[in-house]
Amino acid sequence: MGETIKDLKRTHLCGEVSKKDNANKVTIMGWVQKRRDHGGVIFTDIRDRSGIVQVVFNPDSGEELFEKADTLRSEYVVAITGEVEPRPEGNVNSDLPTGEIEIKAEELRVLDVAKTPPIQIEDNIDTGEDVRLKYRYLDLRRPKMTKLMGLRHDITKTTRDYLDQNGFWEIETPILTKSSPEGARDYLVPSRVNPGQFFALPQSPQIFKQLLMVSGMERYFQIARCFRDEDLRANRQPEFTQIDMEMSFVNQEEVMEITEGLMKELFAVGNIEVPEKIKRMSYQEAMDRFGTDKPDLRFGMELKDLSDVVKDSEFNIFSGTVSNGGQVKGINFKGGADSPRSTIDAFEDYVKMFKAKGLAWMALREDQMKSPIAKFLSETEIEGIKKTMEAEKGDLLLIVADKPSVVAAALGNLRLKIAKENNLIPDEVYKFAWIVDFPLFEYDEAENRLTAIHHPFTAPLEEDIEKLDTDPASVKSKAYDLVLNGEELGGGSIRINNHQLQEKVFSALSISEKEQQEKFGYMLEAFDYGTPPHGGIAFGLDRLMMIIGRTDSIRDVIAFPKTQKATSPLTNAPSEVDKKQLQELGISIRS
Amino acid sequence: MGETIKDLKRTHLCGEVSKKDNANKVTIMGWVQKRRDHGGVIFTDIRDRSGIVQVVFNPDSGEELFEKADTLRSEYVVAITGEVEPRPEGNVNSDLPTGEIEIKAEELRVLDVAKTPPIQIEDNIDTGEDVRLKYRYLDLRRPKMTKLMGLRHDITKTTRDYLDQNGFWEIETPILTKSSPEGARDYLVPSRVNPGQFFALPQSPQIFKQLLMVSGMERYFQIARCFRDEDLRANRQPEFTQIDMEMSFVNQEEVMEITEGLMKELFAVGNIEVPEKIKRMSYQEAMDRFGTDKPDLRFGMELKDLSDVVKDSEFNIFSGTVSNGGQVKGINFKGGADSPRSTIDAFEDYVKMFKAKGLAWMALREDQMKSPIAKFLSETEIEGIKKTMEAEKGDLLLIVADKPSVVAAALGNLRLKIAKENNLIPDEVYKFAWIVDFPLFEYDEAENRLTAIHHPFTAPLEEDIEKLDTDPASVKSKAYDLVLNGEELGGGSIRINNHQLQEKVFSALSISEKEQQEKFGYMLEAFDYGTPPHGGIAFGLDRLMMIIGRTDSIRDVIAFPKTQKATSPLTNAPSEVDKKQLQELGISIRS
Repeated sequence: MGETIKDLKRTHLCGEVSKKDNANKVTIMGWVQKRRDHGGVIFTDIRDRSGIVQVVFNPDSGEELFEKADTLRSEYVVAITGEVEPRPEGNVNSDLPTGEIEIKAEELRVLDVAKTPPIQIEDNIDTGEDVRLKYRYLDLRRPKMTKLMGLRHDITKTTRDYLDQNGFWEIETPILTKSSPEGARDYLVPSRVNPGQFFALPQSPQIFKQLLMVSGMERYFQIARCFRDEDLRANRQPEFTQIDMEMSFVNQEEVMEITEGLMKELFAVGNIEVPEKIKRMSYQEAMDRFGTDKPDLRFGMELKDLSDVVKDSEFNIFSGTVSNGGQVKGINFKGGADSPRSTIDAFEDYVKMFKAKGLAWMALREDQMKSPIAKFLSETEIEGIKKTMEAEKGDLLLIVADKPSVVAAALGNLRLKIAKENNLIPDEVYKFAWIVDFPLFEYDEAENRLTAIHHPFTAPLEEDIEKLDTDPASVKSKAYDLVLNGEELGGGSIRINNHQLQEKVFSALSISEKEQQEKFGYMLEAFDYGTPPHGGIAFGLDRLMMIIGRTDSIRDVIAFPKTQKATSPLTNAPSEVDKKQLQELGISIRS
Repeated sequence: MGETIKDLKRTHLCGEVSKKDNANKVTIMGWVQKRRDHGGVIFTDIRDRSGIVQVVFNPDSGEELFEKADTLRSEYVVAITGEVEPRPEGNVNSDLPTGEIEIKAEELRVLDVAKTPPIQIEDNIDTGEDVRLKYRYLDLRRPKMTKLMGLRHDITKTTRDYLDQNGFWEIETPILTKSSPEGARDYLVPSRVNPGQFFALPQSPQIFKQLLMVSGMERYFQIARCFRDEDLRANRQPEFTQIDMEMSFVNQEEVMEITEGLMKELFAVGNIEVPEKIKRMSYQEAMDRFGTDKPDLRFGMELKDLSDVVKDSEFNIFSGTVSNGGQVKGINFKGGADSPRSTIDAFEDYVKMFKAKGLAWMALREDQMKSPIAKFLSETEIEGIKKTMEAEKGDLLLIVADKPSVVAAALGNLRLKIAKENNLIPDEVYKFAWIVDFPLFEYDEAENRLTAIHHPFTAPLEEDIEKLDTDPASVKSKAYDLVLNGEELGGGSIRINNHQLQEKVFSALSISEKEQQEKFGYMLEAFDYGTPPHGGIAFGLDRLMMIIGRTDSIRDVIAFPKTQKATSPLTNAPSEVDKKQLQELGISIRS
């Protein structure tokens, strides 16, 4: 049976023993990271949450102690008391914070033994993720994972401190609730007390946080668990965490300023600087220059509009597209002129995935220009294209002619693909931007009607309210997304706090009275009783963590994540349950 | 359409405008609490989260403004700019923090109008709870409720600050998980990806927090949502919140000390003092003196053991009980001697609810002693009883003879009943106690075997380990409960971190290898790889909030609680769902 710590007190964490403890007696507790015998002496590295320290067992410290040390194996849990000594000349390990000292053991307690772990407890292992998730408790012992858990604590603590200082109250909203209008698939929970009825797990606290503004809570936040039963893409989890905020009596600029302050503090935890004021870019500008509302600003290769240059061209693919309301735009792959034909073909195949009909190109090689379209273009047009695209010898110009949404998707994605393949994206550069002035609506071709880009409570810009009746598609909204390096960190909006305006928006969205009542009835009723101007924002904590923690898997920043099949190899959840349980719930499994 | 705040900046919260702002221009935003016209002047009270301030509209401030003010109704949302003035002599309201000043309005914007609310926005209303829950967003506007929400934020923030300072990391554990061994009924979530399988919502993070100790996280906490699908008693909710903690490399005393520090800070938020060191009382002492392991120490009336006094009595009900291993105990209702017979009969009916066969009594009236049992007792026995029970003239002695568990339940509860009915419990007195040295097991008569009092991972006292084989029922555990004024605030234990010991306990509990694997398989496997000594504790946040917030309903301390039928009158959850949703989940409703 293992020994106990009884009244033994840990005096130091492993990673904190240092030269200033020289000649002092210390007691450490932790796991055996490594043991090696060298020249009749046993060296062990002992690990705890804080780091590693070397402990030495000498035969002259007593036979019993030495023999006990000889039984130590990796991952045994031990408590060791001994004297701190400087390491002998030549044995100093400058890679280790504790590398200048070692502990000469005087007492050893084996608190628990361990089988050989199926995972190496060190960074940069190539163990498959399924094994790592099954033995998650061992995976978390690896220094990288331990640090990420500590970082997540620091990030959430910093969030709470900052929001508390700014007058926000953290308020818990229900997990057992009703379908919310986010539109993804809900997780359902059968009710035993009300058979045939179901709770839904929240996709976000959106409705509750707006109700809290109606309640006069004024500044709400929550680090909130959210649930979406979607087929999982690479970095999605069925349950994820949002930093969720809402404020009353503020305008868009005030929400953005509060958010900037928060970002400054959070990224500082990871030594990443956030500019004093984050750049604002309109949705339209982002689409024009980068083909996306999540522009990656770490490199150039912006989309250039060639429509004017080629609108009268004899090359009908260009001029015809322009005259039909389409665009001709291109990106300049600097130094790409010598790309082999196979690479250019691959680019073409790639843009076709985004519905482009083809990819025109001009390779400005040192000796000559190669281009299958040059022969259709006038000299002026070619010069115009080169000038607009700031082309030089050595560049490869890639051009798409299509309707604006296709051009944007095709070139926006091609830009990213080329940048990644050619290492054009600098490391450790962080380019933030607010994307603002989103359209309020987008056209849903399948349903042949306008739908809300954010959600139907998003307020339109005041100067656009009149256009709700006449030209709704052109109305811009008080929505804002915070984008970093081509990823959306978070988004939000000022909400509508007025009945007549809300009705106008519902009407533009062709949402019937009946549908309004069904989907949002209790929220609309709440808005009858004096709703303050309010707005908010929500951030994906897991993605923030990945960036600040510099890891590329969402599963590295969640203590107990699920696989892409929404299962837990550790607990074997989900699993079958007793028939009796289902009976009590009034449900049965379809066969 | 309502006016907008545009670039108007709020300069003050309503409750914060004071004399020092005299003659300054301020802008406040909030709700119209009250409006009254007096002497041709319109007075309004404007309310926000911070409090109330009085705004005056004078006819001489301009006709337009005055007419607009005349449209104001209760709960309209307004922004008002004006100059702070001292209230005229005689109009000072010393009940109100802002009672010395008023704001002379210069600009008024009506940000939203309001229908007449179905709930009065003030404290001490007698509106039914169903209405309050349906219009929760209005109920939360009442100052008491707003303050409780702010208090809850303060309490959780204080918790996080304290635990952070003490090296705890907050780590989120899954909500979609597997049945845990708490033994209450689970909420289930059907899996769409794995039809026929179910997640369970956690009853507590118990297993995960122990796995985090195996992971080397060392100090974990979480303000964790927990779920139990039980028939709801008065102050229970289907989802509730725990302050959940776990620590490695500590003994019981260290967990208790960390907890005491936390309690000190939390109760200080409510101006309640926690003693420097909280009294420790053994389970046995608590049962002996108070008949319960949750003793209310705010008053006396302790249980006194009369067994020795009456063990040889000719009164067979007493002596026979003692000789059969039972007890004779009593409580002294000071000054109760003149209770009418009907009261004493009610006491007897009450103790019978706890399986006592009867209630013996002696009323020491001024003139004589009245007692139906006196004639069966000797003078010495009567004197012995009076002496043991410290009886004086005027007292009513109430005696139960039965097996110890029945005596404890009967007299322990009778003690509380009498104290409550006779106002013997002082207000604003807070008596904390740690209950320690619990038995590890209790005997389950229905199943004819020992069961774990806490859970099967609770460690036995070291000095009792040997008795696991020989006399398991006498083994005490390293479990501890924190009790305040007769309520359990929280409880926890040092856990077993050793395989052989765990097996001994399972064997005492008659839990088969197969059952161990099914119920705890992955946890037991985790324990194979080096488990540190660890222990923890969990507190019910909602109950803590009720005590510190001095309210007697759990629904007052949760923003969006459910009814006792586990429904939400606000959202109408739970509700019916589309057939399509059920089809996707592979389940159907039993008809």
